[in-house]
Amino acid sequence: MPNTMMALIYHGNRRLSLEERNVPTIQDPRDAIVQVTRSTICTSDLHILNGAVPQANPNTILGHEFVGKVIEIGSGVHTLCRGDRVAANCITFCGECYFCRKGFINNCQKGGWELGCRIDGCQAEYVRVPYADQGLTKIPDCLTDENALFLGDILSSGYFGAELAEIQPGDTVAILGAGPVGLCSMMCAKLFGAAQIIAIDLDPSRLRIAVQQGLADLTIQPNQESVSDAVLHATHGRGADAVIEAAGGKDTFQTAWQIARPNGVVALVAMYEENQMLPLPIMYGKNLVFKTGGVDAIHCQQLIHLLEHGKLNTDFLITHRSPLNDILVAYQQFEQKQDGCLKWVITPWED
Amino acid sequence: MPNTMMALIYHGNRRLSLEERNVPTIQDPRDAIVQVTRSTICTSDLHILNGAVPQANPNTILGHEFVGKVIEIGSGVHTLCRGDRVAANCITFCGECYFCRKGFINNCQKGGWELGCRIDGCQAEYVRVPYADQGLTKIPDCLTDENALFLGDILSSGYFGAELAEIQPGDTVAILGAGPVGLCSMMCAKLFGAAQIIAIDLDPSRLRIAVQQGLADLTIQPNQESVSDAVLHATHGRGADAVIEAAGGKDTFQTAWQIARPNGVVALVAMYEENQMLPLPIMYGKNLVFKTGGVDAIHCQQLIHLLEHGKLNTDFLITHRSPLNDILVAYQQFEQKQDGCLKWVITPWED
Amino acid sequence: MPNTMMALIYHGNRRLSLEERNVPTIQDPRDAIVQVTRSTICTSDLHILNGAVPQANPNTILGHEFVGKVIEIGSGVHTLCRGDRVAANCITFCGECYFCRKGFINNCQKGGWELGCRIDGCQAEYVRVPYADQGLTKIPDCLTDENALFLGDILSSGYFGAELAEIQPGDTVAILGAGPVGLCSMMCAKLFGAAQIIAIDLDPSRLRIAVQQGLADLTIQPNQESVSDAVLHATHGRGADAVIEAAGGKDTFQTAWQIARPNGVVALVAMYEENQMLPLPIMYGKNLVFKTGGVDAIHCQQLIHLLEHGKLNTDFLITHRSPLNDILVAYQQFEQKQDGCLKWVITPWED
Amino acid sequence: MPNTMMALIYHGNRRLSLEERNVPTIQDPRDAIVQVTRSTICTSDLHILNGAVPQANPNTILGHEFVGKVIEIGSGVHTLCRGDRVAANCITFCGECYFCRKGFINNCQKGGWELGCRIDGCQAEYVRVPYADQGLTKIPDCLTDENALFLGDILSSGYFGAELAEIQPGDTVAILGAGPVGLCSMMCAKLFGAAQIIAIDLDPSRLRIAVQQGLADLTIQPNQESVSDAVLHATHGRGADAVIEAAGGKDTFQTAWQIARPNGVVALVAMYEENQMLPLPIMYGKNLVFKTGGVDAIHCQQLIHLLEHGKLNTDFLITHRSPLNDILVAYQQFEQKQDGCLKWVITPWED
Repeated sequence: MPNTMMALIYHGNRRLSLEERNVPTIQDPRDAIVQVTRSTICTSDLHILNGAVPQANPNTILGHEFVGKVIEIGSGVHTLCRGDRVAANCITFCGECYFCRKGFINNCQKGGWELGCRIDGCQAEYVRVPYADQGLTKIPDCLTDENALFLGDILSSGYFGAELAEIQPGDTVAILGAGPVGLCSMMCAKLFGAAQIIAIDLDPSRLRIAVQQGLADLTIQPNQESVSDAVLHATHGRGADAVIEAAGGKDTFQTAWQIARPNGVVALVAMYEENQMLPLPIMYGKNLVFKTGGVDAIHCQQLIHLLEHGKLNTDFLITHRSPLNDILVAYQQFEQKQDGCLKWVITPWED
Repeated sequence: MPNTMMALIYHGNRRLSLEERNVPTIQDPRDAIVQVTRSTICTSDLHILNGAVPQANPNTILGHEFVGKVIEIGSGVHTLCRGDRVAANCITFCGECYFCRKGFINNCQKGGWELGCRIDGCQAEYVRVPYADQGLTKIPDCLTDENALFLGDILSSGYFGAELAEIQPGDTVAILGAGPVGLCSMMCAKLFGAAQIIAIDLDPSRLRIAVQQGLADLTIQPNQESVSDAVLHATHGRGADAVIEAAGGKDTFQTAWQIARPNGVVALVAMYEENQMLPLPIMYGKNLVFKTGGVDAIHCQQLIHLLEHGKLNTDFLITHRSPLNDILVAYQQFEQKQDGCLKWVITPWED
Repeated sequence: MPNTMMALIYHGNRRLSLEERNVPTIQDPRDAIVQVTRSTICTSDLHILNGAVPQANPNTILGHEFVGKVIEIGSGVHTLCRGDRVAANCITFCGECYFCRKGFINNCQKGGWELGCRIDGCQAEYVRVPYADQGLTKIPDCLTDENALFLGDILSSGYFGAELAEIQPGDTVAILGAGPVGLCSMMCAKLFGAAQIIAIDLDPSRLRIAVQQGLADLTIQPNQESVSDAVLHATHGRGADAVIEAAGGKDTFQTAWQIARPNGVVALVAMYEENQMLPLPIMYGKNLVFKTGGVDAIHCQQLIHLLEHGKLNTDFLITHRSPLNDILVAYQQFEQKQDGCLKWVITPWED
Repeated sequence: MPNTMMALIYHGNRRLSLEERNVPTIQDPRDAIVQVTRSTICTSDLHILNGAVPQANPNTILGHEFVGKVIEIGSGVHTLCRGDRVAANCITFCGECYFCRKGFINNCQKGGWELGCRIDGCQAEYVRVPYADQGLTKIPDCLTDENALFLGDILSSGYFGAELAEIQPGDTVAILGAGPVGLCSMMCAKLFGAAQIIAIDLDPSRLRIAVQQGLADLTIQPNQESVSDAVLHATHGRGADAVIEAAGGKDTFQTAWQIARPNGVVALVAMYEENQMLPLPIMYGKNLVFKTGGVDAIHCQQLIHLLEHGKLNTDFLITHRSPLNDILVAYQQFEQKQDGCLKWVITPWED
């Protein structure tokens, strides 16, 4: 292991730079050091860049979605060995506090969204992972690192959305947003036996991907037709049994509850930049359930089984790749969604 | 059975009158005619009076919470006989439509809140009950009519709130509002094994009742102390596991979600007259669940077992009584909550 | 409608005959008369023939799995019209009794397995269906009668098995028996997100079908290898998360619990002819759940959505067809499982 | 801390002795050493003595139900401090393995029933507790050590039984056996909202306690009346919604399923010394669920809240007390259930 490495640093005020840093070392017996083999740029990284994540620390290495190889473990790590290939959970959690024991790991009293936000993340050659027994999942031999790359963030987010939505076999599920998280939500809604998945997005090329990948049975472009009318038409006039809001747009919250059938569930997995209006008087008697939230990536073990047995496959989300050397350009192009970019993968530094 | 009866008529524009009307008759094979032995005035009746229930029909007999005796049944009624003592469900439902089969009876495609709103209700000597097999529950011999009077409306509402709140044994439950529905919610929160019930109300006399009846372990008066601080203090700084909002006041929606712990459930059973603001950006990561709704009075059979075996008792809610003859005065005093009025019971017409 | 029709009569003592009978008529307002367009022979019919169903009445028309056209309805039928194409539930249930209201329709106090057992069934040109609103499901235009033929019996049984088994996304599900019900169980286990389905059967041709239809990920032939070893090998030594026993063989009950992992669920959907031994002392601490039962065909509405949207397809189960005229020959060949027979479909009488 | 202590040793072949042993020391960073302030004799100890627990190691200190004071912790213990008063879980579990992460801690791959069985237990002055963060629960100031003494074994077992039984508010619950675990099951069945609890035991004095403590609504003595008849009589002829079998007697398994209503749940929490017969042919269609198992004491945190707020109270179970000095006599009298002994508490060694 070398002493220094290259890393992408966030300096605050939209400033990024690629710099040399010390390779991280074990600081707590429960830490592991992981050599990053693949990482991604995530929309949340852009939120940090744009100043929309107040808890983000300047002078921090960005990045929280990655896979890699364990190269060192602390004395309190029991389930991992050096050399293990692992996928990381974007949430850091201790496994022992009140919330962790209830299964609410994203509200861990000692963790939360740490990597690439409050502590150094994965857009670098190496990363220190706290509570490594909790936050790292071994990748089975039959999967490549890339096959498991999205496990701990967007695939978990899609699963989280589908699980929140309480989908029953035979249900119609409407999903607002066909970006990476929306597409993962569709994939996971299928796991729960949805009879009909309706994908809603302004971008026809994303809707096309949803159909081509066999994820959507019906698509709606809100700028071309009334979303409400189309959903009612597809559901015998009742509305969707479950709605997953993965867009976070200006009107999408209102659309979400309007297209839900009475007694339906609306899962809000998007990050909103503005408060929303909840018109309780007019929705009285509709008896809707709203579930708000940031991903609770607690099902990595189940998801890796599903990847392993071919029941989930996220490879099609990778539209672009570049080495860490070119990450600044990659940020620009990802932010502008150039060339139909869904997920941009960062490969190791090339000397 | 006589041909005419006395009844309280709603004429629109806050106007009520006590008039002679024809005794109702069977109009559909699934109807029953019930002689009313006890009815109540409900806050929802005041909502109608105040014009806040647009679907309410003028020229209708008010009232939807009652017990009585079956005096006639249609040919399509299978589970009831003349002479049966019954408690009525405030919701009319067919039992056969898509929503009824899913258990969402308050969204019955042929029913909903009908009695005393869109069709003649129970503040009269007799009432026609549609879908009588669904909407009437037999009262066992060991219970008086009054023991079962609140079964189909406020007791069901309290149960609905407690059920929505997903209370687990050992939980702390905070209940906003210690009126009839709030008190019934406390009673039912106990059924789900709450370790600690916190009652919150501006009115100290209602809080006193909650404590005297063994329903609340802790009380908070929002005008005397900070509700948030008091709830945090009582919950090791975490917040309430479940919150039931049964007040519907100006600030109570905001209080409700603020006092919930992360990953908690907020059940909104109050009727709101104004839209509410949902501050998703600042509650991001708290992962709250909001359940909105009007009572789904589907558990009458279970509730009557609990009344029968003494595990529930709603008699203390009856603070006032008067015969149908005096119902206009009763409305006035109930509206002004005079003399600590919780529930005002209407007894039969006295000739 | 003619006055007489042809029908297959069970006389007791393994005796069957094809005879002329009166076309049934409405006997109760909730009855419907259905013209049978497709029916099947079911293994349960053989159980009756073999005297293993004590409640079966001699002199009864056999058959309980069918689709057809409504040709007459009683005055108390509200959701159906003449001309509706319908699939029948094999269970007769009133929808109103204590058990029906709990969703336990197969224990309906007025119903149960009636058709083709205690009252005249569907191996005839016409059949009377009691409680028609409950027991008949409309077939949507996009499905043929044959597409929906198995809805109310074997597809519901497969779903019942998968639901009992409490399958979670990512689970390994082992299914004993790859006959019609076993294959339907596999199809439905997929709906609940199984990562890996293991089909176990003595007959390699049935296992081959399970694989060809994409229903099984792994197959085990108990006469060729150790079932326990193979299941442990496929599950990191833990055992199957869920086991569905659809075989009812001599050793299959013991195999079922042995291949379940600790804290797993064993769903017993087979009919057993002998008592089984439950070795509680040696399974102490394994904390298994056993669910016993006859099909509760309560999810027909959800299943028809899944058929409608192509998420389920049972057409491949039809291996043989013959008109009602030839039903006696069909029984013989079905009983002997000739030519790889899975399901034998009876088409209408040919004059 | 002294170097030696007194302890009760099991030597195999029903032989016990009170001996001097070394005080235990930390062997793994996750260990804690606890000074025992109260322990109990449990029926499971008698099972070991009688040779019915094959995994029990001779030359081991007995005892697994206790409370005490933490006097030393390993470097990997994060949630406890020296001086903490704690109640112990009878199950040792790592919190990290596949089963622990699923919540099935009694099948922990590194634990299980260890204390007083495979490793030294608590019938001594000090005890080493592995995985102390998992297995010890802090006792709040408002509770004495004795108030919390049964938390980790029999109270957890009672809760486990009630939870397995899937009790819904309004249910009738029948409990076979009114010994310590049966009484705790009654207490916990109340937490889940049972309308009616039926206690069944041969010993009228235990039934009397169940009634006096407000735990049973009805009692049945099997040697005085037909259990089936009495349960049917109390349940409108349907049977109990849930049955908890906490007796483990000769006929109690058969009684348990016979008194359950169709579609009911039978929780088997007793330890059986013999295989049981499962008469599947005659129970076909009754659709019962059987849950087998050893206690999964995962709810200690919730239970301590309930003790803290007075919603549970187990003090009445303590019928006898003696210091560790007299434990050999205590074993004899406990085994013979002398003087109505329910639980015998062992207090510290008296010099």
